[in-house]
Amino acid sequence: MYYTDKKLQIPITVEKPNPVFARMLQQAIGGVEGEIRVCMQYFFQAWGSRGPAKYRDMLLNTATEEISHIEFLSTAVALNLEKAPVKLQEEISADPIAGAVLNGMDMRHILSTGLSAYPGDANGVPFDMSHIYASGNIAGDMYCNVAAEATGRTLACRLYNATDDPGMKRMLAFNIARDTMHQQQWLAVLEELGPTHLPVPNSFPQSKENEEYSYKFFIQTVDKQVGNQEGQAWTSGTAPDGHGKFEPFIAGPLEGAGEPNLGPGRPDTFGQKEQAMVSPNGTAAANGSGKYTYVETVKA
Amino acid sequence: MYYTDKKLQIPITVEKPNPVFARMLQQAIGGVEGEIRVCMQYFFQAWGSRGPAKYRDMLLNTATEEISHIEFLSTAVALNLEKAPVKLQEEISADPIAGAVLNGMDMRHILSTGLSAYPGDANGVPFDMSHIYASGNIAGDMYCNVAAEATGRTLACRLYNATDDPGMKRMLAFNIARDTMHQQQWLAVLEELGPTHLPVPNSFPQSKENEEYSYKFFIQTVDKQVGNQEGQAWTSGTAPDGHGKFEPFIAGPLEGAGEPNLGPGRPDTFGQKEQAMVSPNGTAAANGSGKYTYVETVKA
Amino acid sequence: MYYTDKKLQIPITVEKPNPVFARMLQQAIGGVEGEIRVCMQYFFQAWGSRGPAKYRDMLLNTATEEISHIEFLSTAVALNLEKAPVKLQEEISADPIAGAVLNGMDMRHILSTGLSAYPGDANGVPFDMSHIYASGNIAGDMYCNVAAEATGRTLACRLYNATDDPGMKRMLAFNIARDTMHQQQWLAVLEELGPTHLPVPNSFPQSKENEEYSYKFFIQTVDKQVGNQEGQAWTSGTAPDGHGKFEPFIAGPLEGAGEPNLGPGRPDTFGQKEQAMVSPNGTAAANGSGKYTYVETVKA
Amino acid sequence: MYYTDKKLQIPITVEKPNPVFARMLQQAIGGVEGEIRVCMQYFFQAWGSRGPAKYRDMLLNTATEEISHIEFLSTAVALNLEKAPVKLQEEISADPIAGAVLNGMDMRHILSTGLSAYPGDANGVPFDMSHIYASGNIAGDMYCNVAAEATGRTLACRLYNATDDPGMKRMLAFNIARDTMHQQQWLAVLEELGPTHLPVPNSFPQSKENEEYSYKFFIQTVDKQVGNQEGQAWTSGTAPDGHGKFEPFIAGPLEGAGEPNLGPGRPDTFGQKEQAMVSPNGTAAANGSGKYTYVETVKA
Amino acid sequence: MYYTDKKLQIPITVEKPNPVFARMLQQAIGGVEGEIRVCMQYFFQAWGSRGPAKYRDMLLNTATEEISHIEFLSTAVALNLEKAPVKLQEEISADPIAGAVLNGMDMRHILSTGLSAYPGDANGVPFDMSHIYASGNIAGDMYCNVAAEATGRTLACRLYNATDDPGMKRMLAFNIARDTMHQQQWLAVLEELGPTHLPVPNSFPQSKENEEYSYKFFIQTVDKQVGNQEGQAWTSGTAPDGHGKFEPFIAGPLEGAGEPNLGPGRPDTFGQKEQAMVSPNGTAAANGSGKYTYVETVKA
Amino acid sequence: MYYTDKKLQIPITVEKPNPVFARMLQQAIGGVEGEIRVCMQYFFQAWGSRGPAKYRDMLLNTATEEISHIEFLSTAVALNLEKAPVKLQEEISADPIAGAVLNGMDMRHILSTGLSAYPGDANGVPFDMSHIYASGNIAGDMYCNVAAEATGRTLACRLYNATDDPGMKRMLAFNIARDTMHQQQWLAVLEELGPTHLPVPNSFPQSKENEEYSYKFFIQTVDKQVGNQEGQAWTSGTAPDGHGKFEPFIAGPLEGAGEPNLGPGRPDTFGQKEQAMVSPNGTAAANGSGKYTYVETVKA
Repeated sequence: MYYTDKKLQIPITVEKPNPVFARMLQQAIGGVEGEIRVCMQYFFQAWGSRGPAKYRDMLLNTATEEISHIEFLSTAVALNLEKAPVKLQEEISADPIAGAVLNGMDMRHILSTGLSAYPGDANGVPFDMSHIYASGNIAGDMYCNVAAEATGRTLACRLYNATDDPGMKRMLAFNIARDTMHQQQWLAVLEELGPTHLPVPNSFPQSKENEEYSYKFFIQTVDKQVGNQEGQAWTSGTAPDGHGKFEPFIAGPLEGAGEPNLGPGRPDTFGQKEQAMVSPNGTAAANGSGKYTYVETVKA
Repeated sequence: MYYTDKKLQIPITVEKPNPVFARMLQQAIGGVEGEIRVCMQYFFQAWGSRGPAKYRDMLLNTATEEISHIEFLSTAVALNLEKAPVKLQEEISADPIAGAVLNGMDMRHILSTGLSAYPGDANGVPFDMSHIYASGNIAGDMYCNVAAEATGRTLACRLYNATDDPGMKRMLAFNIARDTMHQQQWLAVLEELGPTHLPVPNSFPQSKENEEYSYKFFIQTVDKQVGNQEGQAWTSGTAPDGHGKFEPFIAGPLEGAGEPNLGPGRPDTFGQKEQAMVSPNGTAAANGSGKYTYVETVKA
Repeated sequence: MYYTDKKLQIPITVEKPNPVFARMLQQAIGGVEGEIRVCMQYFFQAWGSRGPAKYRDMLLNTATEEISHIEFLSTAVALNLEKAPVKLQEEISADPIAGAVLNGMDMRHILSTGLSAYPGDANGVPFDMSHIYASGNIAGDMYCNVAAEATGRTLACRLYNATDDPGMKRMLAFNIARDTMHQQQWLAVLEELGPTHLPVPNSFPQSKENEEYSYKFFIQTVDKQVGNQEGQAWTSGTAPDGHGKFEPFIAGPLEGAGEPNLGPGRPDTFGQKEQAMVSPNGTAAANGSGKYTYVETVKA
Repeated sequence: MYYTDKKLQIPITVEKPNPVFARMLQQAIGGVEGEIRVCMQYFFQAWGSRGPAKYRDMLLNTATEEISHIEFLSTAVALNLEKAPVKLQEEISADPIAGAVLNGMDMRHILSTGLSAYPGDANGVPFDMSHIYASGNIAGDMYCNVAAEATGRTLACRLYNATDDPGMKRMLAFNIARDTMHQQQWLAVLEELGPTHLPVPNSFPQSKENEEYSYKFFIQTVDKQVGNQEGQAWTSGTAPDGHGKFEPFIAGPLEGAGEPNLGPGRPDTFGQKEQAMVSPNGTAAANGSGKYTYVETVKA
Repeated sequence: MYYTDKKLQIPITVEKPNPVFARMLQQAIGGVEGEIRVCMQYFFQAWGSRGPAKYRDMLLNTATEEISHIEFLSTAVALNLEKAPVKLQEEISADPIAGAVLNGMDMRHILSTGLSAYPGDANGVPFDMSHIYASGNIAGDMYCNVAAEATGRTLACRLYNATDDPGMKRMLAFNIARDTMHQQQWLAVLEELGPTHLPVPNSFPQSKENEEYSYKFFIQTVDKQVGNQEGQAWTSGTAPDGHGKFEPFIAGPLEGAGEPNLGPGRPDTFGQKEQAMVSPNGTAAANGSGKYTYVETVKA
Repeated sequence: MYYTDKKLQIPITVEKPNPVFARMLQQAIGGVEGEIRVCMQYFFQAWGSRGPAKYRDMLLNTATEEISHIEFLSTAVALNLEKAPVKLQEEISADPIAGAVLNGMDMRHILSTGLSAYPGDANGVPFDMSHIYASGNIAGDMYCNVAAEATGRTLACRLYNATDDPGMKRMLAFNIARDTMHQQQWLAVLEELGPTHLPVPNSFPQSKENEEYSYKFFIQTVDKQVGNQEGQAWTSGTAPDGHGKFEPFIAGPLEGAGEPNLGPGRPDTFGQKEQAMVSPNGTAAANGSGKYTYVETVKA
């Protein structure tokens, strides 16, 4: 269960409201690198957690924290929209600065929300929940979480850099610090699991995979040359799982692979007749020429 | 530039075509854990790559490989759809096994593609490109890539487990092996970068973040107790970046944080009048009572 | 800020796990009538709330409650997936009951989550946040909320009816009761605001709208007959706002309305030449005939 | 069946074409508060209508009217795009006013439509049909419709306020009037049904819901205090359905609710091994320690 | 403006209601090959039509017809859902035939609509309006329309083939006939425009395109061989526009094309430091080695 | 299989980087008229190709070419973002030109990618794969491809017109030329197939369609007049398939079509009681009046 105290996690102040920065902040709320994503991701990982209970507990704590982040960011959006222009009227359009601000705004802040935040990104694209990764595999989920916090911290740094409002910089300095922590905590789980967590999932026996290709870096260049491998940790040496040995490999069709042939179409799938023509021995017409025949299928 | 030899990367055979397995395989093509995602993700990371050229080269090789994976999986879908029922007619519906197969199929394999693959997942949801993470930060991108390959390998293992067709198991053993490699190669980049790649991005000076909270695990439980921290790598010890020190922290509103107050609504944003009523000193009406006033805004 | 006690709001038990019911329950989690929607909708309404503080408080309480609902429904999904088939192997396919169950499952419960819930609907369509209505108008928002709870309670009743598992019926009886309350509480706000809350928004002066058509029911039938109006509360009598008078009206183009004419296309928008041909007096070519001329636009 | 007379419903004129206002108008066409939504919503409610025929008739009339609204709004978009800049060339970029206009435009009005409307919102997000609510329950649908018209009228008021073009104000005054009517007519149905339409659906016997919680306002604050309930219509008094009695309730886990335990993962779902380890009595490993065992699952 | 007579365009009867066929029919309503798509596509093309008025008129007539198609298909869905199972209760699950039907249904027909149609496809994916192609170019739009009707007629044929209900076959025979007409009418516009409508748009002077490559078929095979061109209308002869001459061309980087180099990252975009390191002459670090330097960017 | 040489297909240069043009170019990458769409569309058509092998080969060549187009466009986006403003700081906002540029940018170029391209359109809407049309019918697919290249070439012409950068004009002149070729090659396939490819699919016998309506242009106007048919190739003469004869037809409900009646709702679908009331003879209550009865359904 969940509870609130109706307060923000941190104080939010904006000295110079900027409606364009309000639009930028939407990315941190409803962007794929944003807070709704991590909040819901950690919740769904927790709610489906199987195995040691400590992981559910950890995820629940941090997921709950993230609601507070969405909350204060939404407050920051609303405060940046104070005094925003809501008209296109002539005297405003003639003013290049006011006009530019209006044009750079998210119009839905005027039209849909009446100067508040909503769960979309800086381009107004609504967040969609397909971005919630909760695989049922704790190691896979931890990598998803580090990825989310790495892109999230990068976003927060870019927002910090974009503004010169002291209140906004203070808020983002807090976000950046929390993203630091969250990166570290998910990585700590992986450290604790040790290198035997690799490859993910570690519950599939590697003897069942096609081991010939498990540590080969495929070189797909048309000149079929290995080239200079210097400084490329992924073509020689021991792999991060501690037992694989990297090697370069000139890629090409493996033994037995040729051009696929799906044969003629079935008449009852309603391609063109030319696709369903067959020779006496059942092969597709190479070029639809006359010695192939077509058998009508719809009779009823 | 890109080139083809029209061949598959590996031979694809299906002994017992199974239209329900064709539907399952769609997840590996157009699911968020699937091959279109990694293909496009690595391409966009490569095409926007700045800094050392070796990363662009590495990404291009693997992105190019992934097209071949989409190709042979699509072939596998088509082969599993050979002999699929395409009618609901009575004699079929009365047959529980044939009927069950039809009901478990992706109907769009009948209706939209004529028994071929398409870029959607096992539920028919089309892949959308918001899942392509290319942040311009090589470390963040590598974590995104490990995450993609970890969920991808988990998916491939589940597919391997779901089928008993020997040809399909052979194909998936290859996919699993390549996912092993791809996990390792992205992790090798991170290893090569060393622990100073953390926190991501490492180009933002940590002195600018709110360092008081950079390594504190926030405990959000209502009982405000630290509880048993045993076996929790994320509440004590050194953080994976090698310099942070983890500590538990009972979360609560930080100093100065209170209940936010956005004040009364502006009349020209068209909330209800009751929201825009103000007292003589400009505060919002607590309960819309009568001593507050509303000023009309629409005049033109 | 938000807190958790790691417990469920209500006890969840499943006597006879049913993977198809797990799929149905997804609608209550990630469907448009589901709990993520109301949770996020109430939160965003609260976080952008302007005017009397009591509305923010009310919304926060109920939004916070809804997280608990998503949580216990997710637990119910996981419990219904215990013992789910995860293989298509021959012996299972030959069993009509097990096969039917497998075919009726959400394949992503096997492939993507490892037998847990995710934020999508009963067809696997991920929830998208465009469904979060937070208009900045308290009356409009209340109607959105009643709508959400009315469709939500209908969904819960259908789920209650669909299952015969006693634990699931108990859970849904709780959901239905809470949906009853939530309908009532949003309606209570509207009652409290009184009929002057209509039309929404009440801050736009009705004198500015085209009052001639404010209470006319437009009859769009091709026979242009008013027909039998008996028992139709919307064509006569006083409107719910207490002052409008309903009347039927035979719809047709209002005075001055004709067929629109956008004229010829501009050559620099790259329609076909025939669309951009103009007569000497600047009108579009009626039928692209010869007396019209086209002026080339691309010169650089 | 449906018919047209090729005319607009009302005359549309634009004195001062404004491409940024064209972008704003897109919200009224393809936004979630817009006309495509109500048009399609009323049609699907009508086409699936069961029970008294008068509701189907009412819905059909208004749905048909809404097509005309989309039509004249699309015409208004095209007229506002007359004379829009379609180039970024240097002399234009150097002109702050022309440049600002271009930057505030929807680029797809230049690139995709050649200066006409399309079914997306003011941010270019295409309308998606998941917003069509047609629940098969007439009362639920009426609330959905009031909600749509309330947010729609709010949008129209904001658009009216944003422009100073007399023709556009005239058009929007008509839209606002029709939204007034449409709100009233859906509310009239609810009035006609009387308070026994509540709770929706009224066909589920309230005796089957968990009546203990049907009229309790859950207070989710961490301090577990009821607080000041003054002026809160939702915590005391009779509920809008005429028989429920509101009461405040300090929320907490109900009797029997504890921390959920989904147990260890099944090996054949490919979480990490650590998640699937079980003690001799079948419980999950608390912390993955050594006395737990893992049984391999992939054998074939 | 638009009008209705409340009647269906054709009589709809269903002898043997089949809920799985109801799901299949959804593809014809809300699938990308379905009727909502053509209806809205023709409307938006009409509403933005510039140039000869006859095209607007033609499009309006057919768009208006398509509403009637959505209407009768929706009725057909509802009729096929008569008697559908709405429970998962034990006695039903034990019945392989009834169970199979339930499992093959669209669960939202039970849960969301109460046995009626909705604007989604056979997999429950809601239609989204990005599929409405209205380019402002009449020739381009006609090809889009032929494409829509070609895939639409193919879908209708597959549905005809899938059912053995005589009423449904009658309905679909009408749909197929209308799709025949609609294909022909859009093609008739293109015929009337003559071969000078090519290439689309014909308003861009071909002298401005890179004419060297306007009629060359690029061969992208890795063996750089032209191969057997027999029976390939696209590698020799006159092109359909009547003036181009097809030729094969071995593709490769054109003169001057090399490996792109985007240089080092800007520090203020927050890639990793290693990406932003520059040598004294400003080039990126090849491998991040020590002689390159990084300049801190965040100072405020 | 696929290969790369790491080079671009053509040299890309940008003299005057323009971040707003970078945003416009996104439409050519991730817009519905863009290169990802054609690339993936041709690949999926090829990978599911049945019938004569030459079509698979043709499609593979062109699909492979299109990857190179996405690549160089992405490079062009990155080059146009060189020197883009990434801050909103006061001195910049006060500068109307720099401010206008920033406001017209895609904010995700700053926030999400660090000045590189991503797979979304000019409004930031991510490309979704539902736009990949691969119907299994070669003729239908060819029309889809012509449609894609016609809208694609129109887009490229508009982009050419929008910029005055010589390097960008050179790049787009190449794109326009290739779009010319691609239009021609798909049309060449249709020419080669001859007029018997119509109507698509040609494998459904026209005798099974409702031939009475196969070549009638339905006139849906409310005045039921044929009107002036002059210059309308679609109302008289021979249809493009060479055998149909066009005729105008005043549309109206066909024989037997009336107002549909779905009857009363089933109580177990949880509409309102009023919808489920039935008279003794089983018809729905016309107006919900008292002589109709409702039978409770929920008993368990």
